[in-house]
Amino acid sequence: MTASGTNDSQLRLPHIIASKRDGKALSPEQIHHFVKGVVSGSVAAEQIGALLMAIYCKGMDWQETTELTSALLHSGTTLSWDTPHPIVDKHSTGGVGDKISLVLAPALAACGCWVPMISGRGLGHTGGTLDKLEAIPGFSVSQSKEDMEQILSKAGACIVGQTELIVPGDRILYAARDITSTVGSLPLIVASIMSKKVAEGLQHLVLDIKVGSAAFMQTEKQARELAEAMVEVGCNLNIETTAVLTEMDCPIGKAVGNAVEVVESIRALKGEGPADLLELVTVEGGQLLMQAGLATNLEHGRELIANSLQDGTALKAFRTMCEAQGVSSDTAAEICEQPEAVLLKATKQQTTIKASTSGFVQHIEAMPLAEVLGELGAGRQHPVSLNIAVEPS
Amino acid sequence: MTASGTNDSQLRLPHIIASKRDGKALSPEQIHHFVKGVVSGSVAAEQIGALLMAIYCKGMDWQETTELTSALLHSGTTLSWDTPHPIVDKHSTGGVGDKISLVLAPALAACGCWVPMISGRGLGHTGGTLDKLEAIPGFSVSQSKEDMEQILSKAGACIVGQTELIVPGDRILYAARDITSTVGSLPLIVASIMSKKVAEGLQHLVLDIKVGSAAFMQTEKQARELAEAMVEVGCNLNIETTAVLTEMDCPIGKAVGNAVEVVESIRALKGEGPADLLELVTVEGGQLLMQAGLATNLEHGRELIANSLQDGTALKAFRTMCEAQGVSSDTAAEICEQPEAVLLKATKQQTTIKASTSGFVQHIEAMPLAEVLGELGAGRQHPVSLNIAVEPS
Repeated sequence: MTASGTNDSQLRLPHIIASKRDGKALSPEQIHHFVKGVVSGSVAAEQIGALLMAIYCKGMDWQETTELTSALLHSGTTLSWDTPHPIVDKHSTGGVGDKISLVLAPALAACGCWVPMISGRGLGHTGGTLDKLEAIPGFSVSQSKEDMEQILSKAGACIVGQTELIVPGDRILYAARDITSTVGSLPLIVASIMSKKVAEGLQHLVLDIKVGSAAFMQTEKQARELAEAMVEVGCNLNIETTAVLTEMDCPIGKAVGNAVEVVESIRALKGEGPADLLELVTVEGGQLLMQAGLATNLEHGRELIANSLQDGTALKAFRTMCEAQGVSSDTAAEICEQPEAVLLKATKQQTTIKASTSGFVQHIEAMPLAEVLGELGAGRQHPVSLNIAVEPS
Repeated sequence: MTASGTNDSQLRLPHIIASKRDGKALSPEQIHHFVKGVVSGSVAAEQIGALLMAIYCKGMDWQETTELTSALLHSGTTLSWDTPHPIVDKHSTGGVGDKISLVLAPALAACGCWVPMISGRGLGHTGGTLDKLEAIPGFSVSQSKEDMEQILSKAGACIVGQTELIVPGDRILYAARDITSTVGSLPLIVASIMSKKVAEGLQHLVLDIKVGSAAFMQTEKQARELAEAMVEVGCNLNIETTAVLTEMDCPIGKAVGNAVEVVESIRALKGEGPADLLELVTVEGGQLLMQAGLATNLEHGRELIANSLQDGTALKAFRTMCEAQGVSSDTAAEICEQPEAVLLKATKQQTTIKASTSGFVQHIEAMPLAEVLGELGAGRQHPVSLNIAVEPS
């Protein structure tokens, strides 16, 4: 018997699966036993699929979700940072034209934070921060823990991919969810996202929960439910976590794609960004500065972030981050100076679609654009240089 | 697009799993596609587990269950018999002391039927006909289709194990159900049982659905539901199928175990069986003789079966079956003459438990006895000679 009264037969996988199948809450021991077995290979693939489906159908309460997050977290290495800087990050549930991280991470670094951002690839119709950064010649998203520490001490921000050592349990479960139609389960989404964020060794986290026709959460109710679960789990695991619900019907900014979004991000880092992007960056950044005690209130935090975009300190942090992540000094300087010239000249095919009549664009539906990008292969296994930019006709 | 309007994307496994997850009925094409992929190995084990759990949670209607049965059936070889004899069989959902097949198959053969019985091992707390028959020295339950034809032409009955070639899809799904706690799903039970029965090339089938404290179906409602589903599926697949619901609180007869049940069966084949066993054998046998047109009504059928037990023709069929399935003529003759002497002499350890006071046994709970047998290893991976017989104190 364990401390909470779970005995050996209750730790047998068929028993764990049957309990969830019947709608019962799993004990912490059962959840940790399952995840350990997933990583060690002692749990059969059929059992992984069956338990994921049982969780999808019967759900998990917040305590179970916290334990699943914790079990995934402890399935691998966790990062920790020996620094006086507040350790902060944001996570977005994925949007179209969502280049917030590219602007926000350097801006937060410029304001005195460390941002050890572990980011992802494009998923479904949404773009991936890593795919976008790889449009920069030389930029490497594969960095060890020691590399990250060096990059952070130079730039205050790094944006890297998940390594093999961090939350390996999540990688196995995610691959299984992907082929078993269990991606959309709230507790599984929460545990997957939050285990990766907690593994970063954060103190403060802001969640950008997208809601709308081009978001995974299409209604405010769904988005709020996800936000509440993630905030609860984050706080349970000692990260001060807040969430903002943001609209995702139109693309963010004016560019959707990989290289074009980097171009737009660099413009924003020079204070020339579109208003919607700037609002999202200053709200999320301001919130984090306030949480970290670097701003007295949200308005003050927003001002500090906006100032870093105006005074060139955010751009400098971006340039330092690029250099620290493998971009040559010359290229980094050129990109910051003339992003279009460096990043868009490699595009082999460009199509300009002109409007047939004059008029004003009232609304742009993000989803069809995202689907075109997806069909063309943006951010997929075979990186290609495909971008869509909204240009005047 | 297929004839019924299922298109290619609907045949993708994640789509099939998502449909069942959301409680939708699967199309025949989707079900056949899944089973084909299970057998070919193109369906991932995680997907098998997830779909089994989705079926467990959301169910399947009779049409889906029929299609699943048909898909499993066509995953392998099906048997067919070129004979004027009616092809009949019974199936029991599993009981304690349930030796009906050992008596019924030879009795039906003696009455002019062919009984190509493919039987199973002990499952959970219930005994297995194959385990019991293997208590007979030399008896082989591994027989090819050609062997079965020879045995049937000599004895009119054979009792064999499932071969690799028959319903391979069910073997894979069954192994997955066993470790994913999805054994108890009605459509999965029905498809598993009925696919094996239909593969035998039957014309008539009687189902013995056990109900009670020592049965898988503990309430009459559950048993009736299972019976209705199996009869429906059997009839949909062109087998005249009927079901009897029989009590399973007390063990059948007076012996529970392997060798002791064979001894009691041989006594029954000599007309010396206990009343409850004889009733079950004559009712199920009489029903099949009536269905096959060999008896004018149930009462007539019961008489014919009872006569075969009295006049020695059932015993003769049993002896011939034993010889045709590998038992030497001498052993077969000895077993039929003095079953105790041949079968129980090998028992290494015997314990006689005497009642502490005199009295009359009013009721014997089957489940505790079955659990003792199970703990002792009866019918498990390592065959041992363990038997419990009720003896006067």
